Amino acid sequence: MFTTIKTTKVYEQVIKQIKGMIWDGTLKTGDKLPSERDLSSQLGVSRASIREALRALEVVGLLDCRQGEGNFIRKNFENSLFEPLSIMFILNKSKPQEIFELRRVIEVETAALAAKMITEEELKELRELIEKIREYGDEDIKARLDKEFHFKIAKASRNSLIVTILNTISTLIDSLIKDARFQILKNESNKDIIDYHHNCIYNALERHDSQEAATVMRMHMELINENLIKLS
Amino acid sequence: MFTTIKTTKVYEQVIKQIKGMIWDGTLKTGDKLPSERDLSSQLGVSRASIREALRALEVVGLLDCRQGEGNFIRKNFENSLFEPLSIMFILNKSKPQEIFELRRVIEVETAALAAKMITEEELKELRELIEKIREYGDEDIKARLDKEFHFKIAKASRNSLIVTILNTISTLIDSLIKDARFQILKNESNKDIIDYHHNCIYNALERHDSQEAATVMRMHMELINENLIKLS
Repeated sequence: MFTTIKTTKVYEQVIKQIKGMIWDGTLKTGDKLPSERDLSSQLGVSRASIREALRALEVVGLLDCRQGEGNFIRKNFENSLFEPLSIMFILNKSKPQEIFELRRVIEVETAALAAKMITEEELKELRELIEKIREYGDEDIKARLDKEFHFKIAKASRNSLIVTILNTISTLIDSLIKDARFQILKNESNKDIIDYHHNCIYNALERHDSQEAATVMRMHMELINENLIKLS
Repeated sequence: MFTTIKTTKVYEQVIKQIKGMIWDGTLKTGDKLPSERDLSSQLGVSRASIREALRALEVVGLLDCRQGEGNFIRKNFENSLFEPLSIMFILNKSKPQEIFELRRVIEVETAALAAKMITEEELKELRELIEKIREYGDEDIKARLDKEFHFKIAKASRNSLIVTILNTISTLIDSLIKDARFQILKNESNKDIIDYHHNCIYNALERHDSQEAATVMRMHMELINENLIKLS
């Protein structure tokens, strides 16, 4: 009996080589790739195959292709997961609730990690953010500060992968529900309770109490998710 | 003063349209796309742009492009996140530890969710898996069953997004450390403690005790991560 021969597409081999060069350090973030013409002759494949590979790597978020300047390995990688995650979300036919839940799942244990690692400087910044969120009248500004509050806690976990994924999920939720934070913060009955939650989270982080940080973050995210479900 | 004009690339517009058709239900998973020629005339863009878009969507995991058959919206989406997550991992220069930690972060709260949702049937399957893991002599089989144990708990969370992401992370860890589960299970001093952990997790799930499920899963993942760090 014959067995099927797996044909690897040419552009897949090009992607594999570029990934390999990043992996072994030959290419670093910010580096410019050789021109399409040079890549084509170095790899011995057509320029069309090179172009296919480069486009795919651009969509995935690995390359920044600037017209007239060339193709660069991305430096700022913060939102790169957005594309594939959003596509997965669409194809999975996930309910928005699953996305909210995923964020909750990650934020709860991230708060526990943050409680272990957070510095005095970061605590001071969180303290200031809580005060500003309480004092500002403008819900647009509040919404921006609230996002910053959660982002700072994620950063305090010292895990850049977690920061990237939470940013991606946050962007995804923003694209699903316009002005979600704005609307939640605008709701009078939420104002005091959100301020109370923020303070509880802060106190747990200040005491470096991981378990308490997880518990109060869970309570906070449950309130937020109830609000998001109403809005979605 | 002039402001910069943002030029959208043609293939990006093609991707946008295809995504839109999936979003509004015109295209469903398993559906075949029109031919390159038809797409080109329907969208009024060159076949080269169509091809760029299709390749990119294939790499992202949205399309399955079968030579001679055509381009299909992917049905099986389980490992699609692998590519972008692994690229992110490479570019971020993340330590393997960050990946292990991300898995722990997600698995702990996933166990809490599973405790709420798990059925009698699923509990029975977990019970059987624990017994088999204990009894089998072959570490290769143990490793496969152990993976199945964690997968079943993720599925019991009823959140398909969490299942997909945990699968992706698991594949990524497998590619970083060859035979990690095998080696951890082979270690004599781990055998009894892993069996004990599995039983604790099962008992918490059976009592539908979310907090306990999270606590014992955290304990279990900490042991696993300590082992992974030694291996990496």
